[in-house]
Amino acid sequence: MLDLTPSPAVSDLDSGLPVPTGVPGVYLFPEQFEAVIALLRRGIAALAAGERFRRLQLPPVFSRRTIEQAGYVKTFPQLLGTVHRYPGDSKAWSRLAPLVESGGAWYADQEIGDLVLLPAACYPVYATLAQSTLDGPVKFAVEAPCFRQEGSSEPGRLRSFRMAELVTAATEDYCASWRAEWLDRVADWLTALSLDVAVEVADDPFFGPGRKLYQAAQRMQELKLELRVPVADGVVQAVASANLHKDHFGEAFDFTAGGAVGHTSCIAFGLERIALALTHAHGTDIEAWPATVRSILY
Amino acid sequence: MLDLTPSPAVSDLDSGLPVPTGVPGVYLFPEQFEAVIALLRRGIAALAAGERFRRLQLPPVFSRRTIEQAGYVKTFPQLLGTVHRYPGDSKAWSRLAPLVESGGAWYADQEIGDLVLLPAACYPVYATLAQSTLDGPVKFAVEAPCFRQEGSSEPGRLRSFRMAELVTAATEDYCASWRAEWLDRVADWLTALSLDVAVEVADDPFFGPGRKLYQAAQRMQELKLELRVPVADGVVQAVASANLHKDHFGEAFDFTAGGAVGHTSCIAFGLERIALALTHAHGTDIEAWPATVRSILY
Repeated sequence: MLDLTPSPAVSDLDSGLPVPTGVPGVYLFPEQFEAVIALLRRGIAALAAGERFRRLQLPPVFSRRTIEQAGYVKTFPQLLGTVHRYPGDSKAWSRLAPLVESGGAWYADQEIGDLVLLPAACYPVYATLAQSTLDGPVKFAVEAPCFRQEGSSEPGRLRSFRMAELVTAATEDYCASWRAEWLDRVADWLTALSLDVAVEVADDPFFGPGRKLYQAAQRMQELKLELRVPVADGVVQAVASANLHKDHFGEAFDFTAGGAVGHTSCIAFGLERIALALTHAHGTDIEAWPATVRSILY
Repeated sequence: MLDLTPSPAVSDLDSGLPVPTGVPGVYLFPEQFEAVIALLRRGIAALAAGERFRRLQLPPVFSRRTIEQAGYVKTFPQLLGTVHRYPGDSKAWSRLAPLVESGGAWYADQEIGDLVLLPAACYPVYATLAQSTLDGPVKFAVEAPCFRQEGSSEPGRLRSFRMAELVTAATEDYCASWRAEWLDRVADWLTALSLDVAVEVADDPFFGPGRKLYQAAQRMQELKLELRVPVADGVVQAVASANLHKDHFGEAFDFTAGGAVGHTSCIAFGLERIALALTHAHGTDIEAWPATVRSILY
Protein backbone atom coordinates (compact mmCIF):
# COMPACT_ATOMS: atom_id res chain seq x y z
CA MET A 1 0.00 0.00 0.00
CA LEU A 2 1.42 3.35 -1.02
CA ASP A 3 1.52 6.23 1.42
CA LEU A 4 -0.73 9.06 0.42
CA THR A 5 1.17 11.96 -1.04
CA PRO A 6 0.69 15.14 1.01
CA SER A 7 -1.86 17.09 -0.97
CA PRO A 8 -3.22 20.61 -0.86
CA ALA A 9 -6.66 20.89 0.69
CA VAL A 10 -9.28 22.11 -1.78
CA SER A 11 -9.51 25.32 0.26
CA ASP A 12 -5.82 26.09 -0.54
CA LEU A 13 -6.90 26.46 -4.14
CA ASP A 14 -8.67 29.73 -3.33
CA SER A 15 -5.67 31.76 -2.11
CA GLY A 16 -4.97 33.25 -5.54
CA LEU A 17 -1.36 32.11 -5.11
CA PRO A 18 0.49 29.09 -6.51
CA VAL A 19 -0.66 25.95 -4.67
CA PRO A 20 1.98 23.54 -3.30
CA THR A 21 1.85 19.95 -4.55
CA GLY A 22 3.86 17.96 -2.02
CA VAL A 23 7.03 18.16 -4.14
CA PRO A 24 9.26 21.22 -3.70
CA GLY A 25 9.23 23.88 -6.39
CA VAL A 26 6.25 22.45 -8.33
CA TYR A 27 2.91 24.25 -8.04
CA LEU A 28 -0.63 24.31 -9.38
CA PHE A 29 -1.76 27.71 -10.61
CA PRO A 30 -5.29 28.84 -9.75
CA GLU A 31 -7.38 31.05 -12.00
CA GLN A 32 -6.64 34.28 -10.13
CA PHE A 33 -2.87 33.76 -10.42
CA GLU A 34 -3.23 32.84 -14.10
CA ALA A 35 -5.02 36.13 -14.64
CA VAL A 36 -1.85 37.89 -13.44
CA ILE A 37 0.28 35.73 -15.76
CA ALA A 38 -2.04 36.59 -18.68
CA LEU A 39 -1.73 40.30 -17.87
CA LEU A 40 2.05 39.99 -17.81
CA ARG A 41 2.03 38.40 -21.26
CA ARG A 42 0.04 41.37 -22.53
CA GLY A 43 2.35 43.79 -20.75
CA ILE A 44 5.48 42.21 -22.22
CA ALA A 45 3.91 42.15 -25.69
CA ALA A 46 3.08 45.85 -25.33
CA LEU A 47 6.63 46.57 -24.19
CA ALA A 48 7.95 44.78 -27.28
CA ALA A 49 5.49 46.35 -29.72
CA GLY A 50 8.11 48.72 -31.18
CA GLU A 51 10.12 45.89 -32.75
CA ARG A 52 9.13 43.04 -35.02
CA PHE A 53 9.51 39.73 -33.17
CA ARG A 54 8.69 36.28 -34.52
CA ARG A 55 6.49 34.66 -31.85
CA LEU A 56 6.81 31.02 -30.83
CA GLN A 57 5.34 28.92 -28.06
CA LEU A 58 7.79 26.20 -27.06
CA PRO A 59 7.25 22.77 -25.51
CA PRO A 60 8.58 21.80 -22.04
CA VAL A 61 10.81 19.08 -23.52
CA PHE A 62 13.39 19.50 -26.23
CA SER A 63 16.04 17.64 -28.21
CA ARG A 64 18.81 16.39 -25.93
CA ARG A 65 21.31 16.87 -28.76
CA THR A 66 20.41 20.53 -29.10
CA ILE A 67 20.88 21.16 -25.38
CA GLU A 68 24.19 19.27 -25.43
CA GLN A 69 25.27 21.31 -28.43
CA ALA A 70 24.26 24.58 -26.75
CA GLY A 71 26.75 23.87 -23.96
CA TYR A 72 24.16 23.57 -21.21
CA VAL A 73 24.84 19.96 -20.26
CA LYS A 74 28.56 20.52 -19.86
CA THR A 75 28.23 23.56 -17.61
CA PHE A 76 24.94 23.04 -15.71
CA PRO A 77 24.49 19.25 -15.27
CA GLN A 78 23.24 19.77 -11.70
CA LEU A 79 20.24 21.79 -12.97
CA LEU A 80 19.29 19.63 -15.95
CA GLY A 81 16.32 17.26 -15.94
CA THR A 82 16.80 14.37 -18.37
CA VAL A 83 13.81 12.40 -19.67
CA HIS A 84 14.06 8.63 -19.34
CA ARG A 85 11.81 5.86 -20.61
CA TYR A 86 11.11 2.18 -20.09
CA PRO A 87 12.61 0.24 -23.02
CA GLY A 88 11.45 -3.26 -22.02
CA ASP A 89 8.57 -5.33 -23.28
CA SER A 90 5.37 -6.34 -21.59
CA LYS A 91 6.83 -9.61 -20.30
CA ALA A 92 9.82 -7.92 -18.69
CA TRP A 93 7.47 -5.40 -17.08
CA SER A 94 5.58 -8.21 -15.35
CA ARG A 95 8.61 -8.59 -13.11
CA LEU A 96 8.97 -4.87 -12.34
CA ALA A 97 5.29 -3.93 -12.03
CA PRO A 98 4.83 -5.33 -8.48
CA LEU A 99 7.62 -3.01 -7.30
CA VAL A 100 5.41 0.04 -7.86
CA GLU A 101 3.17 -0.92 -4.95
CA SER A 102 5.86 -2.36 -2.73
CA GLY A 103 7.98 0.78 -3.08
CA GLY A 104 10.80 -1.02 -4.90
CA ALA A 105 12.98 0.18 -7.77
CA TRP A 106 10.51 -0.33 -10.65
CA TYR A 107 12.61 2.27 -12.50
CA ALA A 108 15.77 0.16 -12.45
CA ASP A 109 15.67 -0.33 -16.25
CA GLN A 110 14.78 3.25 -17.25
CA GLU A 111 17.02 4.55 -20.06
CA ILE A 112 17.80 8.05 -21.21
CA GLY A 113 15.96 9.02 -24.40
CA ASP A 114 16.31 11.80 -26.97
CA LEU A 115 14.77 14.54 -24.79
CA VAL A 116 15.58 16.74 -21.83
CA LEU A 117 13.45 19.25 -19.99
CA LEU A 118 14.01 22.65 -21.55
CA PRO A 119 16.12 24.72 -19.12
CA ALA A 120 15.57 28.10 -20.81
CA ALA A 121 13.25 29.37 -23.52
CA CYS A 122 15.93 30.63 -25.90
CA TYR A 123 17.79 27.41 -26.84
CA PRO A 124 15.27 26.27 -29.48
CA VAL A 125 15.65 29.68 -31.15
CA TYR A 126 19.39 29.25 -31.71
CA ALA A 127 18.77 25.80 -33.17
CA THR A 128 16.44 27.31 -35.80
CA LEU A 129 19.34 29.50 -36.95
CA ALA A 130 21.81 26.63 -37.43
CA GLN A 131 24.06 27.00 -40.48
CA SER A 132 22.40 30.21 -41.63
CA THR A 133 23.70 33.59 -42.70
CA LEU A 134 21.81 36.44 -41.07
CA ASP A 135 21.33 39.47 -43.33
CA GLY A 136 20.13 41.60 -40.45
CA PRO A 137 19.08 41.22 -36.82
CA VAL A 138 16.72 38.28 -36.24
CA LYS A 139 14.28 38.63 -33.33
CA PHE A 140 12.11 36.15 -31.52
CA ALA A 141 9.56 36.48 -28.71
CA VAL A 142 9.16 33.07 -27.11
CA GLU A 143 7.60 31.45 -24.08
CA ALA A 144 8.30 28.03 -22.63
CA PRO A 145 7.59 25.95 -19.57
CA CYS A 146 11.13 25.54 -18.23
CA PHE A 147 12.71 23.27 -15.65
CA ARG A 148 15.73 23.55 -13.38
CA GLN A 149 16.62 21.16 -10.61
CA GLU A 150 16.93 23.91 -7.97
CA GLY A 151 18.07 22.84 -4.54
CA SER A 152 16.27 25.33 -2.35
CA SER A 153 12.54 25.82 -1.95
CA GLU A 154 12.27 29.49 -0.97
CA PRO A 155 9.30 31.40 -2.46
CA GLY A 156 9.79 31.94 -6.18
CA ARG A 157 12.48 29.24 -6.39
CA LEU A 158 10.35 27.05 -8.66
CA ARG A 159 11.74 24.02 -10.45
CA SER A 160 8.96 24.15 -13.06
CA PHE A 161 8.25 27.68 -14.23
CA ARG A 162 7.33 29.69 -17.30
CA MET A 163 9.84 31.93 -18.97
CA ALA A 164 9.15 34.55 -21.63
CA GLU A 165 12.15 35.72 -23.63
CA LEU A 166 12.98 38.31 -26.22
CA VAL A 167 15.93 37.10 -28.22
CA THR A 168 18.07 38.66 -30.92
CA ALA A 169 20.80 37.23 -33.11
CA ALA A 170 22.89 39.78 -34.97
CA THR A 171 26.33 41.38 -35.05
CA GLU A 172 28.36 41.97 -31.90
CA ASP A 173 27.65 45.71 -31.81
CA TYR A 174 23.96 45.29 -32.44
CA CYS A 175 23.54 42.71 -29.68
CA ALA A 176 25.46 44.82 -27.17
CA SER A 177 23.45 47.98 -27.73
CA TRP A 178 20.15 46.07 -27.98
CA ARG A 179 20.81 44.46 -24.60
CA ALA A 180 21.69 47.84 -23.03
CA GLU A 181 18.49 49.44 -24.34
CA TRP A 182 16.35 46.57 -23.17
CA LEU A 183 17.95 46.53 -19.73
CA ASP A 184 16.84 50.14 -19.23
CA ARG A 185 13.42 49.47 -20.70
CA VAL A 186 12.71 46.52 -18.39
CA ALA A 187 14.07 48.33 -15.31
CA ASP A 188 11.78 51.29 -16.08
CA TRP A 189 8.84 48.95 -16.65
CA LEU A 190 9.30 47.13 -13.35
CA THR A 191 9.66 50.49 -11.58
CA ALA A 192 6.46 51.70 -13.22
CA LEU A 193 4.79 48.55 -11.85
CA SER A 194 5.73 49.94 -8.40
CA LEU A 195 8.35 47.26 -7.82
CA ASP A 196 11.59 48.15 -6.07
CA VAL A 197 14.22 47.21 -8.66
CA ALA A 198 17.95 46.63 -8.23
CA VAL A 199 20.15 45.82 -11.23
CA GLU A 200 23.06 43.53 -10.41
CA VAL A 201 25.87 41.85 -12.26
CA ALA A 202 25.34 38.14 -11.73
CA ASP A 203 26.88 34.88 -12.63
CA ASP A 204 25.40 31.57 -13.68
CA PRO A 205 25.91 28.52 -11.44
CA PHE A 206 28.61 26.96 -13.62
CA PHE A 207 29.58 23.46 -12.50
CA GLY A 208 32.70 21.38 -12.94
CA PRO A 209 36.17 22.32 -14.17
CA GLY A 210 36.99 25.97 -14.74
CA ARG A 211 33.83 27.29 -13.10
CA LYS A 212 35.63 30.01 -11.14
CA LEU A 213 37.29 31.29 -14.29
CA TYR A 214 33.99 31.21 -16.19
CA GLN A 215 32.27 33.14 -13.45
CA ALA A 216 35.03 35.71 -13.13
CA ALA A 217 34.98 36.29 -16.89
CA GLN A 218 31.20 36.53 -16.91
CA ARG A 219 31.22 39.08 -14.09
CA MET A 220 34.02 41.14 -15.55
CA GLN A 221 32.30 41.40 -18.92
CA GLU A 222 28.91 41.95 -17.25
CA LEU A 223 27.40 39.30 -19.52
CA LYS A 224 24.48 38.63 -17.16
CA LEU A 225 22.59 41.52 -15.60
CA GLU A 226 19.75 40.63 -13.29
CA LEU A 227 16.76 42.73 -12.30
CA ARG A 228 15.94 41.89 -8.71
CA VAL A 229 12.76 42.75 -6.79
CA PRO A 230 11.07 41.55 -3.59
CA VAL A 231 8.84 38.50 -4.25
CA ALA A 232 7.94 37.74 -0.61
CA ASP A 233 8.72 39.16 2.84
CA GLY A 234 12.50 39.31 3.12
CA VAL A 235 13.02 37.50 -0.21
CA VAL A 236 14.51 39.40 -3.13
CA GLN A 237 14.94 37.48 -6.38
CA ALA A 238 15.92 38.03 -9.98
CA VAL A 239 12.64 38.33 -11.91
CA ALA A 240 14.26 39.22 -15.22
CA SER A 241 17.70 39.22 -16.77
CA ALA A 242 19.44 40.87 -19.70
CA ASN A 243 22.10 38.62 -21.19
CA LEU A 244 24.90 38.84 -23.70
CA HIS A 245 26.17 35.50 -24.95
CA LYS A 246 28.83 36.99 -27.26
CA ASP A 247 29.46 34.45 -30.07
CA HIS A 248 28.80 31.37 -27.92
CA PHE A 249 25.65 30.27 -29.79
CA GLY A 250 26.91 31.48 -33.17
CA GLU A 251 29.84 29.10 -32.70
CA ALA A 252 27.73 26.27 -31.32
CA PHE A 253 25.09 26.46 -34.07
CA ASP A 254 27.30 27.75 -36.87
CA PHE A 255 25.52 30.93 -37.94
CA THR A 256 27.01 34.22 -39.07
CA ALA A 257 26.01 37.88 -39.06
CA GLY A 258 27.77 40.76 -40.81
CA GLY A 259 30.47 38.44 -42.14
CA ALA A 260 31.50 37.18 -38.68
CA VAL A 261 30.30 34.55 -36.24
CA GLY A 262 26.82 35.58 -35.07
CA HIS A 263 26.29 37.08 -31.62
CA THR A 264 23.16 36.72 -29.51
CA SER A 265 21.48 38.46 -26.64
CA CYS A 266 18.30 37.77 -24.71
CA ILE A 267 15.99 39.37 -22.19
CA ALA A 268 14.34 36.79 -19.93
CA PHE A 269 11.21 37.30 -17.83
CA GLY A 270 10.35 34.84 -15.07
CA LEU A 271 6.56 34.95 -15.31
CA GLU A 272 5.74 33.34 -11.96
CA ARG A 273 8.35 35.46 -10.18
CA ILE A 274 7.06 38.74 -11.61
CA ALA A 275 3.50 37.63 -10.80
CA LEU A 276 4.58 36.81 -7.23
CA ALA A 277 6.30 40.19 -6.93
CA LEU A 278 3.15 41.95 -8.15
CA THR A 279 0.83 40.04 -5.80
CA HIS A 280 3.31 40.62 -2.95
CA ALA A 281 3.29 44.36 -3.66
CA HIS A 282 -0.36 44.87 -4.65
CA GLY A 283 -2.36 41.83 -3.50
CA THR A 284 -3.95 38.93 -5.40
CA ASP A 285 -7.00 40.90 -6.59
CA ILE A 286 -6.05 42.62 -9.85
CA GLU A 287 -9.11 44.86 -9.69
CA ALA A 288 -7.77 46.36 -6.46
CA TRP A 289 -4.31 47.15 -7.87
CA PRO A 290 -3.27 50.81 -8.23
CA ALA A 291 -4.70 52.27 -11.44
CA THR A 292 -1.21 53.25 -12.63
CA VAL A 293 -0.02 49.65 -12.40
CA ARG A 294 -3.08 48.29 -14.16
CA SER A 295 -2.83 50.85 -16.94
CA ILE A 296 0.65 49.56 -17.85
CA LEU A 297 -0.50 45.95 -18.22
CA TYR A 298 -4.06 46.26 -19.59
CA MET B 1 32.70 18.04 -32.38
CA LEU B 2 28.96 17.41 -32.17
CA ASP B 3 26.89 16.84 -35.26
CA LEU B 4 24.46 19.63 -35.90
CA THR B 5 20.90 18.67 -35.02
CA PRO B 6 18.60 18.88 -38.03
CA SER B 7 16.79 22.17 -37.58
CA PRO B 8 13.82 23.83 -39.17
CA ALA B 9 14.70 26.59 -41.58
CA VAL B 10 13.45 29.99 -40.45
CA SER B 11 11.02 29.92 -43.41
CA ASP B 12 9.29 26.82 -41.92
CA LEU B 13 8.19 29.03 -39.06
CA ASP B 14 5.73 30.82 -41.34
CA SER B 15 3.51 27.86 -42.27
CA GLY B 16 1.04 28.49 -39.46
CA LEU B 17 1.45 24.82 -38.52
CA PRO B 18 3.51 23.16 -35.78
CA VAL B 19 7.19 23.27 -36.73
CA PRO B 20 9.26 20.05 -36.47
CA THR B 21 12.32 20.16 -34.22
CA GLY B 22 14.45 17.21 -35.32
CA VAL B 23 13.01 14.93 -32.59
CA PRO B 24 9.77 13.06 -33.38
CA GLY B 25 6.55 14.30 -31.81
CA VAL B 26 8.00 17.54 -30.40
CA TYR B 27 7.11 20.79 -32.16
CA LEU B 28 7.45 24.56 -31.92
CA PHE B 29 4.16 26.43 -32.21
CA PRO B 30 4.10 29.61 -34.31
CA GLU B 31 1.87 32.57 -33.55
CA GLN B 32 -0.82 31.66 -36.09
CA PHE B 33 -1.21 28.15 -34.65
CA GLU B 34 -1.27 29.55 -31.11
CA ALA B 35 -4.12 31.82 -32.16
CA VAL B 36 -6.12 28.67 -32.97
CA ILE B 37 -5.19 27.16 -29.58
CA ALA B 38 -6.28 30.38 -27.84
CA LEU B 39 -9.61 30.29 -29.70
CA LEU B 40 -10.12 26.69 -28.63
CA ARG B 41 -9.55 27.62 -25.00
CA ARG B 42 -12.26 30.27 -25.35
CA GLY B 43 -14.54 27.82 -27.10
CA ILE B 44 -14.13 25.15 -24.41
CA ALA B 45 -14.68 27.75 -21.67
CA ALA B 46 -17.88 28.86 -23.42
CA LEU B 47 -19.00 25.24 -23.73
CA ALA B 48 -18.45 24.80 -19.99
CA ALA B 49 -20.07 28.08 -18.96
CA GLY B 50 -23.22 26.40 -17.68
CA GLU B 51 -21.42 24.68 -14.80
CA ARG B 52 -19.16 25.99 -12.10
CA PHE B 53 -15.63 24.64 -12.59
CA ARG B 54 -12.59 25.43 -10.48
CA ARG B 55 -9.86 26.43 -12.97
CA LEU B 56 -6.25 25.34 -12.63
CA GLN B 57 -3.21 25.57 -14.88
CA LEU B 58 -0.92 22.62 -14.22
CA PRO B 59 2.84 22.23 -14.67
CA PRO B 60 4.40 19.73 -17.13
CA VAL B 61 6.08 17.79 -14.31
CA PHE B 62 4.38 16.29 -11.29
CA SER B 63 5.02 14.23 -8.17
CA ARG B 64 6.21 10.73 -9.07
CA ARG B 65 4.47 9.35 -5.97
CA THR B 66 1.13 10.75 -7.10
CA ILE B 67 1.44 9.18 -10.56
CA GLU B 68 2.50 5.87 -8.99
CA GLN B 69 -0.47 6.08 -6.65
CA ALA B 70 -2.86 6.88 -9.50
CA GLY B 71 -1.94 3.55 -11.11
CA TYR B 72 -0.38 5.06 -14.23
CA VAL B 73 3.11 3.67 -13.73
CA LYS B 74 1.90 0.12 -13.28
CA THR B 75 -0.29 0.07 -16.38
CA PHE B 76 1.43 2.48 -18.82
CA PRO B 77 5.19 2.29 -18.12
CA GLN B 78 5.94 2.36 -21.85
CA LEU B 79 4.37 5.85 -22.19
CA LEU B 80 5.79 7.44 -19.05
CA GLY B 81 8.65 9.95 -19.09
CA THR B 82 10.61 9.93 -15.82
CA VAL B 83 12.75 12.92 -14.81
CA HIS B 84 16.32 12.13 -13.81
CA ARG B 85 19.07 14.29 -12.40
CA TYR B 86 22.81 14.33 -11.85
CA PRO B 87 23.50 13.66 -8.16
CA GLY B 88 27.30 13.99 -8.23
CA ASP B 89 29.55 16.84 -7.21
CA SER B 90 31.64 19.18 -9.28
CA LYS B 91 34.74 17.00 -9.00
CA ALA B 92 32.92 13.87 -10.18
CA TRP B 93 31.50 15.85 -13.09
CA SER B 94 35.02 16.73 -14.27
CA ARG B 95 35.33 13.12 -15.37
CA LEU B 96 31.98 12.98 -17.15
CA ALA B 97 31.97 16.45 -18.73
CA PRO B 98 34.35 15.56 -21.62
CA LEU B 99 31.90 12.83 -22.69
CA VAL B 100 29.36 15.45 -23.76
CA GLU B 101 31.52 16.52 -26.71
CA SER B 102 32.90 13.09 -27.52
CA GLY B 103 29.39 11.60 -27.63
CA GLY B 104 29.99 9.32 -24.64
CA ALA B 105 27.62 8.35 -21.84
CA TRP B 106 27.83 11.54 -19.75
CA TYR B 107 24.45 10.49 -18.34
CA ALA B 108 25.77 7.23 -16.83
CA ASP B 109 25.23 8.52 -13.27
CA GLN B 110 21.77 10.10 -13.77
CA GLU B 111 19.32 9.07 -11.03
CA ILE B 112 15.55 9.14 -10.91
CA GLY B 113 14.17 12.02 -8.82
CA ASP B 114 10.78 12.85 -7.32
CA LEU B 115 9.15 13.92 -10.59
CA VAL B 116 7.72 12.47 -13.77
CA LEU B 117 6.29 14.18 -16.84
CA LEU B 118 2.56 14.58 -16.38
CA PRO B 119 0.82 12.04 -18.69
CA ALA B 120 -2.69 13.53 -18.40
CA ALA B 121 -4.11 16.73 -16.98
CA CYS B 122 -6.52 15.16 -14.51
CA TYR B 123 -4.16 13.33 -12.11
CA PRO B 124 -3.26 16.40 -10.02
CA VAL B 125 -6.98 16.99 -9.51
CA TYR B 126 -7.55 13.62 -7.85
CA ALA B 127 -4.56 14.26 -5.57
CA THR B 128 -6.19 17.48 -4.30
CA LEU B 129 -9.18 15.39 -3.18
CA ALA B 130 -7.16 12.88 -1.15
CA GLN B 131 -8.81 11.81 2.09
CA SER B 132 -11.77 14.13 1.65
CA THR B 133 -15.53 13.67 1.88
CA LEU B 134 -17.35 15.25 -1.03
CA ASP B 135 -20.69 16.82 -0.10
CA GLY B 136 -21.65 17.27 -3.72
CA PRO B 137 -20.09 17.04 -7.18
CA VAL B 138 -16.66 18.70 -7.40
CA LYS B 139 -15.67 20.09 -10.80
CA PHE B 140 -12.38 21.24 -12.23
CA ALA B 141 -11.38 22.73 -15.57
CA VAL B 142 -7.67 22.19 -16.03
CA GLU B 143 -4.98 22.47 -18.67
CA ALA B 144 -1.54 20.92 -18.69
CA PRO B 145 1.38 20.36 -20.99
CA CYS B 146 1.38 16.54 -21.11
CA PHE B 147 3.87 13.95 -22.29
CA ARG B 148 3.58 10.43 -23.62
CA GLN B 149 6.38 8.40 -25.11
CA GLU B 150 4.45 7.59 -28.31
CA GLY B 151 6.14 5.27 -30.75
CA SER B 152 4.78 6.59 -34.03
CA SER B 153 5.22 9.99 -35.57
CA GLU B 154 2.10 10.38 -37.74
CA PRO B 155 0.53 13.87 -37.80
CA GLY B 156 -1.08 14.69 -34.46
CA ARG B 157 0.82 11.89 -32.68
CA LEU B 158 2.72 14.36 -30.48
CA ARG B 159 4.78 13.28 -27.51
CA SER B 160 4.56 16.74 -25.94
CA PHE B 161 1.07 18.22 -26.21
CA ARG B 162 -1.46 20.31 -24.32
CA MET B 163 -4.55 18.76 -22.86
CA ALA B 164 -7.57 20.60 -21.48
CA GLU B 165 -9.85 18.58 -19.24
CA LEU B 166 -13.17 18.95 -17.50
CA VAL B 167 -13.20 16.68 -14.49
CA THR B 168 -15.86 15.76 -11.97
CA ALA B 169 -15.70 13.73 -8.78
CA ALA B 170 -19.06 12.67 -7.35
CA THR B 171 -21.32 9.66 -6.86
CA GLU B 172 -21.47 6.80 -9.37
CA ASP B 173 -24.79 7.91 -10.85
CA TYR B 174 -23.77 11.53 -11.15
CA CYS B 175 -20.51 10.69 -12.92
CA ALA B 176 -22.23 8.35 -15.37
CA SER B 177 -24.92 10.82 -16.42
CA TRP B 178 -22.47 13.74 -16.47
CA ARG B 179 -20.19 11.83 -18.83
CA ALA B 180 -23.12 10.90 -21.11
CA GLU B 181 -24.28 14.53 -21.31
CA TRP B 182 -20.80 15.80 -22.02
CA LEU B 183 -20.18 13.20 -24.70
CA ASP B 184 -23.20 14.51 -26.63
CA ARG B 185 -22.24 18.11 -25.99
CA VAL B 186 -18.70 17.67 -27.31
CA ALA B 187 -19.86 15.62 -30.32
CA ASP B 188 -22.34 18.37 -31.22
CA TRP B 189 -19.67 21.03 -30.73
CA LEU B 190 -17.17 19.29 -33.01
CA THR B 191 -19.92 18.80 -35.60
CA ALA B 192 -20.81 22.48 -35.36
CA LEU B 193 -17.12 23.22 -36.04
CA SER B 194 -17.69 21.39 -39.35
CA LEU B 195 -15.58 18.42 -38.32
CA ASP B 196 -16.65 14.93 -39.33
CA VAL B 197 -17.02 13.18 -35.95
CA ALA B 198 -17.17 9.47 -35.14
CA VAL B 199 -17.69 8.29 -31.55
CA GLU B 200 -15.94 5.01 -30.77
CA VAL B 201 -15.49 2.77 -27.79
CA ALA B 202 -11.74 2.66 -27.21
CA ASP B 203 -9.24 1.11 -24.90
CA ASP B 204 -6.10 2.43 -23.30
CA PRO B 205 -2.75 0.85 -24.21
CA PHE B 206 -2.45 -1.16 -20.99
CA PHE B 207 0.93 -2.89 -20.61
CA GLY B 208 2.08 -5.89 -18.66
CA PRO B 209 0.15 -8.64 -16.91
CA GLY B 210 -3.60 -8.79 -17.33
CA ARG B 211 -3.72 -6.23 -20.11
CA LYS B 212 -6.15 -8.21 -22.27
CA LEU B 213 -8.55 -8.58 -19.37
CA TYR B 214 -8.27 -4.87 -18.55
CA GLN B 215 -8.99 -3.93 -22.12
CA ALA B 216 -11.92 -6.31 -22.50
CA ALA B 217 -13.47 -4.95 -19.29
CA GLN B 218 -12.87 -1.36 -20.39
CA ARG B 219 -14.52 -2.01 -23.78
CA MET B 220 -17.45 -3.91 -22.34
CA GLN B 221 -18.25 -1.17 -19.85
CA GLU B 222 -17.59 1.53 -22.47
CA LEU B 223 -15.38 3.37 -19.98
CA LYS B 224 -13.48 5.26 -22.69
CA LEU B 225 -15.36 6.88 -25.56
CA GLU B 226 -13.29 8.69 -28.13
CA LEU B 227 -14.35 11.43 -30.51
CA ARG B 228 -12.42 10.94 -33.72
CA VAL B 229 -12.03 13.41 -36.58
CA PRO B 230 -9.66 13.81 -39.57
CA VAL B 231 -6.51 15.75 -38.59
CA ALA B 232 -4.62 15.32 -41.89
CA ASP B 233 -5.17 13.65 -45.27
CA GLY B 234 -6.05 10.02 -44.54
CA VAL B 235 -5.36 10.40 -40.78
CA VAL B 236 -8.27 10.17 -38.35
CA GLN B 237 -7.44 10.59 -34.67
CA ALA B 238 -9.13 10.89 -31.32
CA VAL B 239 -9.23 14.64 -30.57
CA ALA B 240 -11.32 14.30 -27.42
CA SER B 241 -12.49 11.57 -25.09
CA ALA B 242 -15.19 11.09 -22.48
CA ASN B 243 -14.05 8.81 -19.69
CA LEU B 244 -15.55 7.02 -16.73
CA HIS B 245 -13.03 5.83 -14.15
CA LYS B 246 -15.61 4.26 -11.81
CA ASP B 247 -14.15 4.27 -8.28
CA HIS B 248 -10.52 3.83 -9.40
CA PHE B 249 -9.33 7.25 -8.22
CA GLY B 250 -11.64 7.31 -5.21
CA GLU B 251 -9.92 4.11 -4.06
CA ALA B 252 -6.43 5.30 -4.96
CA PHE B 253 -6.79 8.68 -3.25
CA ASP B 254 -9.22 7.69 -0.54
CA PHE B 255 -12.13 10.10 -1.07
CA THR B 256 -15.84 9.47 -0.71
CA ALA B 257 -19.06 10.86 -2.18
CA GLY B 258 -22.62 10.12 -1.07
CA GLY B 259 -21.39 7.74 1.62
CA ALA B 260 -19.48 5.51 -0.81
CA VAL B 261 -16.09 5.51 -2.50
CA GLY B 262 -15.98 8.52 -4.84
CA HIS B 263 -16.34 8.08 -8.59
CA THR B 264 -14.75 10.29 -11.24
CA SER B 265 -15.26 11.14 -14.86
CA CYS B 266 -13.39 13.40 -17.25
CA ILE B 267 -13.73 14.96 -20.68
CA ALA B 268 -10.34 15.46 -22.33
CA PHE B 269 -9.57 17.78 -25.26
CA GLY B 270 -6.31 17.38 -27.19
CA LEU B 271 -5.68 21.03 -28.04
CA GLU B 272 -3.09 20.51 -30.78
CA ARG B 273 -5.15 17.75 -32.37
CA ILE B 274 -8.34 19.82 -32.48
CA ALA B 275 -6.31 22.76 -33.82
CA LEU B 276 -4.80 20.49 -36.51
CA ALA B 277 -8.27 19.19 -37.40
CA LEU B 278 -9.58 22.76 -37.72
CA THR B 279 -6.65 23.93 -39.86
CA HIS B 280 -6.95 20.77 -41.95
CA ALA B 281 -10.66 21.47 -42.53
CA HIS B 282 -10.63 25.27 -42.78
CA GLY B 283 -7.03 26.41 -43.38
CA THR B 284 -4.47 28.17 -41.16
CA ASP B 285 -5.98 31.65 -41.54
CA ILE B 286 -8.68 32.02 -38.89
CA GLU B 287 -10.07 35.12 -40.60
CA ALA B 288 -10.90 32.99 -43.63
CA TRP B 289 -12.77 30.30 -41.68
CA PRO B 290 -16.52 29.89 -42.24
CA ALA B 291 -18.46 32.45 -40.20
CA THR B 292 -20.46 29.68 -38.49
CA VAL B 293 -17.28 28.05 -37.21
CA ARG B 294 -15.81 31.33 -36.01
CA SER B 295 -19.02 32.30 -34.25
CA ILE B 296 -18.80 29.17 -32.07
CA LEU B 297 -15.28 29.92 -30.87
CA TYR B 298 -15.16 33.72 -30.71
